[in-house]
Amino acid sequence: MAHGYIGSMKTKPGKRDEVVAILLAAAEGLRDHGCHSYVVGLDVGDPDMIVVTEIWESKERHDASLRLPEAKEAIAVALPLLTGEFTGRELAIAGGLGA
Amino acid sequence: MAHGYIGSMKTKPGKRDEVVAILLAAAEGLRDHGCHSYVVGLDVGDPDMIVVTEIWESKERHDASLRLPEAKEAIAVALPLLTGEFTGRELAIAGGLGA
Repeated sequence: MAHGYIGSMKTKPGKRDEVVAILLAAAEGLRDHGCHSYVVGLDVGDPDMIVVTEIWESKERHDASLRLPEAKEAIAVALPLLTGEFTGRELAIAGGLGA
Repeated sequence: MAHGYIGSMKTKPGKRDEVVAILLAAAEGLRDHGCHSYVVGLDVGDPDMIVVTEIWESKERHDASLRLPEAKEAIAVALPLLTGEFTGRELAIAGGLGA
């Protein structure tokens, strides 16, 4: 089964657009690292909340992606724009449209 | 912007596979109703929890889909297998891989 991850991050006030741009710039390159889907969503109810939904070939490939130099660089740039409030939920993908 | 929805539902003990089958059977037909993605995930940390991540053309099309006869029928079949604990989160989709 593919590995799913739903992660949320809270940005400092007014910094959401900047963080979204960083995430979107990183997304396309993930395809070569076992990522099938990396969708950046804006919480409708909270102007400083981002929710990313991801599908990976495996949990191992997801974990490995966080050690890529480009990922470390993106994280370093984004981190000062975030409050430090994160949530994460791991899923086993059963299937569906677009899975 | 496309409309995203992350919904969780808790099944009665041992009923998750049955509910997943109902959701997967319904997923493919949603494509014709403005649904880009409908991914059924199993919470790794809870054997009775399902998390569905969805992307729709618009919130209006998502709302309308719940009034389709086939959706009402699927909901009627699944409902007795669920505890009634639901969560839902609405997103505006900024983009990303697979968005």
